Amino acid sequence: MPQPESVAESSRSLQEIIKDERLDEAQAWLEERPPHVIADELARMGGAGAGVAFRLLDKDRALSVFEELDPVGQQQILAGLRDRSVLELVERMDPDDRVRMLREMPAKVARRVLAGLSPQKRWVTSALLGYPEDSVGRYMTPEVVALPQDLTVGQALETVREKGADAETVYTLPVVDAGRRLTGVVELRELVLNPPDMMVADLVVSEPTTVYATEPAEEAARLMGETNDLNLPVVDSEGRLVGLLTFDDAAEVIEEADTEDFARQAGTAPWAGHYMAASVWRLARYRAVWLSLLLVAATLTVGVTRAFEATLEQVAALALFIPMLIGAGGNAGAQAATACVRALAVGEVRGSDLLKVVWREFRVGLLLGSLLAVVGLAVGTLFASADIAVTVGITLVLICGWAATVGGTMPLLAKRLGIDPAVVSAPMVTTFVDTTGLVIYFLAAKAVLGV
Amino acid sequence: MPQPESVAESSRSLQEIIKDERLDEAQAWLEERPPHVIADELARMGGAGAGVAFRLLDKDRALSVFEELDPVGQQQILAGLRDRSVLELVERMDPDDRVRMLREMPAKVARRVLAGLSPQKRWVTSALLGYPEDSVGRYMTPEVVALPQDLTVGQALETVREKGADAETVYTLPVVDAGRRLTGVVELRELVLNPPDMMVADLVVSEPTTVYATEPAEEAARLMGETNDLNLPVVDSEGRLVGLLTFDDAAEVIEEADTEDFARQAGTAPWAGHYMAASVWRLARYRAVWLSLLLVAATLTVGVTRAFEATLEQVAALALFIPMLIGAGGNAGAQAATACVRALAVGEVRGSDLLKVVWREFRVGLLLGSLLAVVGLAVGTLFASADIAVTVGITLVLICGWAATVGGTMPLLAKRLGIDPAVVSAPMVTTFVDTTGLVIYFLAAKAVLGV
Repeated sequence: MPQPESVAESSRSLQEIIKDERLDEAQAWLEERPPHVIADELARMGGAGAGVAFRLLDKDRALSVFEELDPVGQQQILAGLRDRSVLELVERMDPDDRVRMLREMPAKVARRVLAGLSPQKRWVTSALLGYPEDSVGRYMTPEVVALPQDLTVGQALETVREKGADAETVYTLPVVDAGRRLTGVVELRELVLNPPDMMVADLVVSEPTTVYATEPAEEAARLMGETNDLNLPVVDSEGRLVGLLTFDDAAEVIEEADTEDFARQAGTAPWAGHYMAASVWRLARYRAVWLSLLLVAATLTVGVTRAFEATLEQVAALALFIPMLIGAGGNAGAQAATACVRALAVGEVRGSDLLKVVWREFRVGLLLGSLLAVVGLAVGTLFASADIAVTVGITLVLICGWAATVGGTMPLLAKRLGIDPAVVSAPMVTTFVDTTGLVIYFLAAKAVLGV
Repeated sequence: MPQPESVAESSRSLQEIIKDERLDEAQAWLEERPPHVIADELARMGGAGAGVAFRLLDKDRALSVFEELDPVGQQQILAGLRDRSVLELVERMDPDDRVRMLREMPAKVARRVLAGLSPQKRWVTSALLGYPEDSVGRYMTPEVVALPQDLTVGQALETVREKGADAETVYTLPVVDAGRRLTGVVELRELVLNPPDMMVADLVVSEPTTVYATEPAEEAARLMGETNDLNLPVVDSEGRLVGLLTFDDAAEVIEEADTEDFARQAGTAPWAGHYMAASVWRLARYRAVWLSLLLVAATLTVGVTRAFEATLEQVAALALFIPMLIGAGGNAGAQAATACVRALAVGEVRGSDLLKVVWREFRVGLLLGSLLAVVGLAVGTLFASADIAVTVGITLVLICGWAATVGGTMPLLAKRLGIDPAVVSAPMVTTFVDTTGLVIYFLAAKAVLGV
């Protein structure tokens, strides 16, 4: 009964199927699914299993699946292929994808692969590799159909037809002068919708938004999101056209940047791999550095508490509220930090807004602190005494005002100092506010309780 | 000397220029800048100033700038315009942008605007408003050039030329049968690059990726990022074509979703406005609910500490390490939670991975805890005694193992229960881990110190 069996088994994962060495079934599984689903499954499998599954794909689908993988996953696949298959695959990739994969490879392997490419591809690849990491140059496509200035719409369409087959996109057509300097852009849409004898010059957008090949890819991608352009022409420092940044590469850049920012916000080193594919060791390694640094920084809280040991011994009940108070301060600081990091990333806040942000966050913090103080007064009265409740209330107002100010200021200061604001993580703010918050608490206690 | 003056003043912000009522200068400022820069400046200005500046723009640029604003900013502008200008502007917007703006308006105003539209636009708008909030239907463009199945390339291009002027995009051309059921998709690129007498049927992708109008826009947008499609055809439950989700709307959906996730990760209610345009009250309001809830939850730490008051009184030095230990637990939990929330958002982890994730994070936590224990032993010995140092070390191992497990599990549990995993914020995990971490600490102290 082949029919019911295949239905029942369609829900099994590729990993299980490969483990059972049922290659026919694996092939059927692969044929039924789109490339991005296969790529995700391969990334989760990792190692030998993914290699076996990959070799079951036909040539064209293999390329599509391969291009969907992130560089870490791509390397795993390549490691299992023979040299000739590797070269064939790499030769057929888009130049910008190839460059980003080569970057992740051990230098020795990358050199061997590069040497095996056809001269033209090697040239293009080396050119892209010449741009700084994470720059637009690493993400752009150099294979562009550029139009001269003086064509009719009909002639322009003819040019697209002749030269367009190899280009990643023909929807945005840069217009260049004799020195390949960019003078404008025309959309394919305009050529199709207008009569053939019209002049291209009449349809050209003459001051298009452009980006430099050397500028950070994230900035260019965010700009593209704001201007809603499909592709942005990329120019060198002299305004000569060198490529196009396409919408899908921009989307990839933004997804990577946001994933990185998320990781950083939680105090984790950013990385490019698949969560399920990473080993436990690897996951731990990415988190270990920040976690240890933060612990070392947190030993300051031990020092501060010891400095006020006399106060604590006189009024033992003060210890009860320490976790709650520093927790509240940490949360208020994390809220402000995250809001400012994101506002900086999407361009709503600039480095020059520093003082405005400090003033805003200070007031927001005081407002929130006053609200929390009401809860604090109640909790303090319930678990301790009226004067301790007052201490807790005052501390909450001050801690929140301080935490929000610090949280909002640190990312902007980082930006001004030329450091990526996302490095200012919520745990960093929390740890800093923990220490200073304790000082605030004990000083408030001394003032109110007179100890 | 008008020349030097204008140079010197070009660095002034539009806000300052408007405040000085120098309308000529404001007009010059506006003419020199692209729409997205103007929109950002208007969003920061808010209120009357933005209204004045907006009225200085010519009609076409006004529309471009208006479409770049978020719904909150759009409303501010509309509030300052006369009814006729409002209608003119709204009439010329893209249908999907119009729908999202109407959603944000007070119902009364929205009804009046809707009533003033031309019958055809009113019909399209009402249709889109019929889809659930945050669904694909609210973001798609209904104005699509669909092709019948049996055309030649030349005829298809002719159809595009006739009907394409009003469509938001003509680059993705859905192919439909007589019942408007989607049968495939052909790219304009294919039509342009192939001979006019070829049949469109030979170029059609016959099983294109599609999305339902009622499904969540975020899922559709992430899918688009994975398939690298420029536009995705949107169908109803019977497979009939109802629109296209375009790349720029998808990018907008993802930026909004990521901003929302960032806010939630820090325990802030998500909102759609511009950071610099929001009032202090408004910023505080978005953060107040979670901050108060977390404080109330944190009162549990007061209860736990009081329950172990006898232990604390016997060994007062235990109090010294409380902030450091719960800080470390909170950080480890936040790292795990953020990693899992992001992995779920981008589709690397699925709800069914729950047990795998629990097991992974538990081991990652123990590894990290063992590393931190080394620091803990040193700090404990330095500030207190050997047996307290051992207590601190053991607590760090257990707290980190527990925190990472909780942090990794909570988002997946939320997903399984049908709650947005991003609601599981880092502060929520931190607060939960604070309380349980204290219990772990005091129990470890009892075991090691025998108090």
